[in-house]
Formats: sequence, structure tokens, C-alpha cells
Amino acid sequence: MDRERVKYVLDEKEMPQYWYNVLADLPEPLPPALHPQTKEPIKPEDLTALFPMELIKQEVSTERYIEIPDEVLAILRLWRPTTLYRARRLEKALKTPAKIYYKYEGSSPPGSHKPNTAVAQAYYNKKEGINRITTETGAGQWGSALAFAGACFDIEVKVYMVRISFDQKPYRREMMRVWGADCIPSPSYQTKSGRNVLAKEPDCPGSLGLAISEAVEEAVSRDDTHYSLGSVLNHVLLHQTVIGQESKKLLEKIDEYPDVIIGCVGGGSNFAGMFLPFIKDKIDGIHPGLKIISVEPASCPTLTRGPYCYDYGDEAGMTPLLKMFTLGHGFIPPPLHAGGLRYHGMAPIICHLLNLGLIEARAVNQLDTFQAGIDFARSEGIISAPEANHAIRVTIDEAIKCRETGETKTILLALSGHGHVDMAAYQAYFSGKLKNYDYPQEKIQEALHSLPKV
Amino acid sequence: MDRERVKYVLDEKEMPQYWYNVLADLPEPLPPALHPQTKEPIKPEDLTALFPMELIKQEVSTERYIEIPDEVLAILRLWRPTTLYRARRLEKALKTPAKIYYKYEGSSPPGSHKPNTAVAQAYYNKKEGINRITTETGAGQWGSALAFAGACFDIEVKVYMVRISFDQKPYRREMMRVWGADCIPSPSYQTKSGRNVLAKEPDCPGSLGLAISEAVEEAVSRDDTHYSLGSVLNHVLLHQTVIGQESKKLLEKIDEYPDVIIGCVGGGSNFAGMFLPFIKDKIDGIHPGLKIISVEPASCPTLTRGPYCYDYGDEAGMTPLLKMFTLGHGFIPPPLHAGGLRYHGMAPIICHLLNLGLIEARAVNQLDTFQAGIDFARSEGIISAPEANHAIRVTIDEAIKCRETGETKTILLALSGHGHVDMAAYQAYFSGKLKNYDYPQEKIQEALHSLPKV
Repeated sequence: MDRERVKYVLDEKEMPQYWYNVLADLPEPLPPALHPQTKEPIKPEDLTALFPMELIKQEVSTERYIEIPDEVLAILRLWRPTTLYRARRLEKALKTPAKIYYKYEGSSPPGSHKPNTAVAQAYYNKKEGINRITTETGAGQWGSALAFAGACFDIEVKVYMVRISFDQKPYRREMMRVWGADCIPSPSYQTKSGRNVLAKEPDCPGSLGLAISEAVEEAVSRDDTHYSLGSVLNHVLLHQTVIGQESKKLLEKIDEYPDVIIGCVGGGSNFAGMFLPFIKDKIDGIHPGLKIISVEPASCPTLTRGPYCYDYGDEAGMTPLLKMFTLGHGFIPPPLHAGGLRYHGMAPIICHLLNLGLIEARAVNQLDTFQAGIDFARSEGIISAPEANHAIRVTIDEAIKCRETGETKTILLALSGHGHVDMAAYQAYFSGKLKNYDYPQEKIQEALHSLPKV
Repeated sequence: MDRERVKYVLDEKEMPQYWYNVLADLPEPLPPALHPQTKEPIKPEDLTALFPMELIKQEVSTERYIEIPDEVLAILRLWRPTTLYRARRLEKALKTPAKIYYKYEGSSPPGSHKPNTAVAQAYYNKKEGINRITTETGAGQWGSALAFAGACFDIEVKVYMVRISFDQKPYRREMMRVWGADCIPSPSYQTKSGRNVLAKEPDCPGSLGLAISEAVEEAVSRDDTHYSLGSVLNHVLLHQTVIGQESKKLLEKIDEYPDVIIGCVGGGSNFAGMFLPFIKDKIDGIHPGLKIISVEPASCPTLTRGPYCYDYGDEAGMTPLLKMFTLGHGFIPPPLHAGGLRYHGMAPIICHLLNLGLIEARAVNQLDTFQAGIDFARSEGIISAPEANHAIRVTIDEAIKCRETGETKTILLALSGHGHVDMAAYQAYFSGKLKNYDYPQEKIQEALHSLPKV
């Protein structure tokens, strides 16, 4: 009879009071972001039309710890600290000697890790007197998180949602409305970028790149409006480090330290939030053997097959140039269901660490990820988001390896959110409509052509 | 700056080890269930085709505490104990001196309180060698909970889902599939009851009563199969008492005791699970002023407008006769979105307590409940299920009364689940397609005609 503990939670009073900034501890500095026109390192004043100064400072800060404002903590406390689970039933089902822990971010109001940064971004905007924010969203995880954060600070939020998702995935759109955000399909007639596209293609299904262009255009053109991004940038990763800090503290209390940390990556913020608070131990040689595995879709293989070079963050080339592994800003990923992983680039911090050999990357096929998610749900109960299923896939693979080698490794899995709003994806899987997508070598060559010259 | 605590959780070790059985403490005994044919008090052996003996015993037991088996606790621990929240942001938004606490059951894998009993029922069936269970489901909360419980104990689960919900609410159907259950639309060609209806009406949208008939018919006709019910019966309410026990223990730790307990009622199990562990204090005169308010839809006003008499639990009249407030087993509720509250009857325990004047009942309109849910989401973050919005409505009303009278009442709200799978209902609300439904006096007269003679 298993009466051993399966959940570990910090007391509310033990919540992290600081974000951890890895820029303080990198063995080599991060290559700077470049201005899209001049291609010179970008200056803080170049970004003030989009972001509040506090976030711009955080983007380049090298302070190791940045204090979390009380007003942000007051909101985070609605669902944080989050639970660390020991996956005892999954371990048994796999007959593995490995110990599997997972930190679950699905208990937040929108059901993912995204509000960890949305709340902070909304707060700093409000503090600077900004009462209106635009953003884009694909499947709607980020849009719903920012809508929630807007409700917390009485900020008007306008979300440009990729039209095909707006039509096909109405649930997250309605969540945004519940929290009071204005969610419209992109391309729209409300921006020049949108009108240009619609003139040529009235039924255009939209793309994330185009939605970014619309959101940025509106923010730049209105003094009362800023723009907000849900991943990729340094300050976004910074805000997510509460995940890893909580995990580390909880594991310490039970005398555990992970041998392997696993997470899925789209822009990279959830996984970075988990592993960054551990990586100093590896850099400093305290835990040199720590394996950090980022998992991406085989059909959007940014880290495993893209080159490492400067590229734009958006399709239209309006954003600063970031040094990253990239499939080219013109790359349109196939319609895989893990919408949060359909991005041509990756957070510069993750790319830099991969380039330095401090983390590794693995690509997995869509069908394998859904099977992993189903296996997980049948033992642990939680139905996870299609994005998180990528991390579960590799976790199961590693646990099976341990069964074969007899190693009692400790695996720490970053479980970014629940899949209750993504059941259409599971439906497609069960009905046999899902498939794996190829990413042929020619496409990588094409991607190289679309890269900007720096 | 609000840095006061908003969440209270028991340690895993403090989880209730016993269910609380109110039958031990009733001032008058509960009227017995009657055999549908003989109309004599039902005997345990009349129920063995449907339920395992342990559950039949629990149905009539007058032991005050019934031990929760270790195997059940091992599963409950995947998400229990659940969190008690202090709704500080809602209190502020309402400018009320009232203290509002809510116990949230949305963190379970299926997102509601239902698995508290589904897990226990699956366990006792398994223990008796039963590997197959049928059940019915409307919107899918119960079906998904039993599917999850089936996955935990390796039991085949077959769910007859009301066809209109099967077609219109695919998300919960897919959740059932993820956990391995077989979910088919009702009416089906797999039972006599289903075929009879389809012969007359091939496009029949189905009803909960009919789905019960199909599930019961299959269970009765197969030796290897039992049937499971998600509310109404005594043993179901018993299993839900972990909710109230946890709440009581947490409130004791902070020297609080509720003045008012509020919950929504369909069959009544969630709310009973919350208030039953408190009601002995009222019966014994320790807290004589404790107000216990059950909230139902104005369009399905079982407790507020139905007569108190014997009626069948299902439309076809196959189940035992239960003494309850009822709108008549032939009553078909209007298509309100709180599917879990569309039931003609009510748990006999709740009806008995209402009849004794120990609890009270209130009916609210659909549109008012959605507005309450939105107000709640914008301050507390959580988007709650349409059912739970009924309880939120009355909680807000009571808190506003406190603002007017200046009373600092302590309100305890039973929040049964999240609404992430019910966003279509919110969509209907925002688009103006939702309305209130009338329940005219003539219908009550009609209902009285359909009641069986006892």
C-alpha cells in the first residue's frame, strides 16, 4: 500500500521574493540585441514606445536578484507557490527505478505558466501610467494570461488572435472576454499591416508573425498603449524563474537534486524558468553532471537543426535582431497542435546556453507526444497541454532508459499547463487525423536564405 | 499593500481518514427508499445487480464515521487536500466587511468535485471483482470523473452521454477518451430503451433520464457489469464529506467559523459534502445560527417550488422511489447551461434537512449567475463552472447585504469546479444568446400529476 507523499508545496510565506537573473552568472556575455535598421546594439530609448522602462532595464540588467514587487506577489499568491508532484503512479506503470518529479503550472487561473510574466508586465505598465496594452496570441495561452493580468490591474488589453485559431479555438477567446479583454481576429482592418494583407487575401487565416505586426503597429501608433510579449525576451524568462526557485527549494527539503531537468520549448520561457535557477550549480562545477534537456517538435526543429545567427523575432522584420537558433523569420511551421511551440526562433538566453554546451536539445514527433500525454493522464490523472506532452515524451523515454540500465536517476519535469482547453487536439489524435510532419533539409537551406545580413 | 494570506491548505498527512455520515446524527430518521414495484422499503439484495455490497451498506449505514480505504486515499492524494481561499480581492471589489472563504474543487484532474466519489465507487467495485461499470452523463462532468477513476483501478467504463451534449460539448467526451473510457451518444442502438426511442424518433437529442435507463439496463443485463451514480444517493454524499471536513479543520486553525455556508445544488452532492460536517453543530445547538443556503436555478426550482413526496430518480421509473422535493420525474428542464443542475429531484438527505428547517433554499436566474461568475473571475482569477456561478451569485448578494448592514459575517462558499470546458456557455452569454427561463405555476401542477402513487 502506497501511502507515501506525492505532493510538495511551499508555504505562502516561503514564496520566492526575487527573480533570478542568469545574466549575472553567464560564463560569456549574451550577444546583444541589434536595432532592426542600424544593426547596432539596441539602446533603451529605442524600446520606450513598446515597453515600460522597468522592463527595458530588466532586459539588460546583470543584477543577480531582482526584487518581485509586493503588488505582483499579491497576485501571484492567488495560485502560487505551485505544487511539485512525485509521479509515483507513472514510475510504477513504467517499472522504472527513476524518481520522477514534476512541477505543475496548470493551477493558475488561465491554466499555464504564462501569467507569471503577464502579471509582472501588467504591473510595470500600470506603474508607468499605461492603461492599455496590445499583444498577439496564437492558440490563446498567452492572450488569456495577459487578459487575466489586465483584469488584476485594471488595464485594457487588446489581443490580436490568429484568425484560424480565433475561429477554431473559441474557448480561450472566451476566457479572454471573461477577464474583460478585447480579442479580435488577425488579420484585421484595424491596422495598416492587416489591411494590406486583407486587400490581397480577404480570407487570410493569419499567422503569429502577422499578429505581432498588428499589435506592435497599434502600440507604436498610440501614446497611451504599450505592447507585451509572452516569451523569448530576457525579462520574460526572468519572471518565470519562480518556477525553478520553488522546485529547487522543495527538492532541497527532501534532500533531492535532479540528475536531469526536462521541459518543452517554443519561445523557451517556461523551461528557462525551471532550469535557470539550477544552472549556476553546473556553471560553478557543483553539479557538473546535471543534464538539461529542452524538447521541441520535430516539425519546428529550431534548436536541433537551425543555424545560430541574428534574425528577427517576427515575420515582418519590425522587431530587434536577436542572436538565436532560427528556422528563419519567414518560416511558417506546419499546423501541429502544440500551438505554443510553433515559433521560428528561440529565447536568446536558451540559444546561448545551448551554444555553450550547458544544455541540450531533442526533437520529438507529434504522435509520440500525444501517446505520452495519454499514458501520463492514465497514471497521474492530469491531462496536460499538447506543448507539455513533448516534455512528458522525453521524461518517459529517460525513465525507460533507467529501467534498462538500472540507474535510479532523479528526473525533474517542467509541466507547463493543463490541456482542458485543448481537447480538440486529443480528438484529432483519437480520430487518426493527426500526423507527424517532416522537416526536410531543403527547408533549412531556404531558411538560411531568408536570414538578414548582419 | 495586501500581503495577507489568501490560501489555506492542510498537509497531506492531515487529510480526513474517515467520511462523515450524517445519518448517525439526524434528529429524525431519513424516510426509506422504496422498491419501484412493491413500494415497500427496499432491501440490500434488491440493489446487488447495480452496486457492490460495500456501497449498499454505506447507503443505509448509521455509523458516524466510515473509514476511507488506503487505496482510495492514495488516489485522492493526487489532488487532495484542496485549497481554501480567502477571497480578499472580491471582498475589496464589493467593499464588503464580510469575510468570504471558498473551497475550490476545480484542481482535481477532471476539474470538479465528482472524482471524490467516483474513485471510491470504482474502488469498491474493483474489490468485489467488478471490472466494468456503466453510467450516464449530461454535460460530462460525472462521466469524465468516472472515466478517470476507471483508469486508476483498471476498470472498463462505459458512459452513455446525452446525444445533444455529445455533439455540442466534445471536450469532456474527449477527456473521457483520454482516460480510456468508452463514451457513446444516448439514445443508442445498444439497449432496448435506446432502440425503442430511436424507432419513434431517429434524431432524438436524448435526455439524462433516458441515458440512466440505458446505463441501468446494460448493468442489469450483464453479470460482469455494475452501474454508478454521481449524485443524489446517500453514499455519494458521504464520499463528498472530505470537502467540508477539510474546510472545517482549516477554518478552526485560523479561529474562524462560518455564519453562512453557500453552495449550488443539482443532485446535491457537492454542497452536502461541504455543509454536512458542519450541521451537527447546528443540530446540537453549538452554532444554532448557522445559515446553510442551497442555490438552484429558477428554471429548475426543485427545492423552492416542488412538493416533498416519493418520486423516481429517473424518467423511465426504473430506480427506487426516493422521498424528495421533486418537479416530477417526467419534468424536462429547459436547456440552461448549468447542465449539472438540470435534475427534477434532489438528494433525499438534502430534502429531509430542508423539510426539518435545518437548511434553506434559494433560486436564481441564469443571467445573474453568469454576471456573478464574471465578477468573480475578474477579482479572484478563477473562471468557475456555470453550476458554481449559482453559488457565487448568492455569495455576492450576501456580501452586499453585509455592506449595507455593516455586519462582518464569515461566508463559506463551495466552489465545485472550473469552467474551462464550459466556455461555450460564456460565449452564449456574451453574444446575448442566453436568457432566463420561466417556470410557471401550471408546470408545477403538471408535475404533481406525474408523481407515482405511494
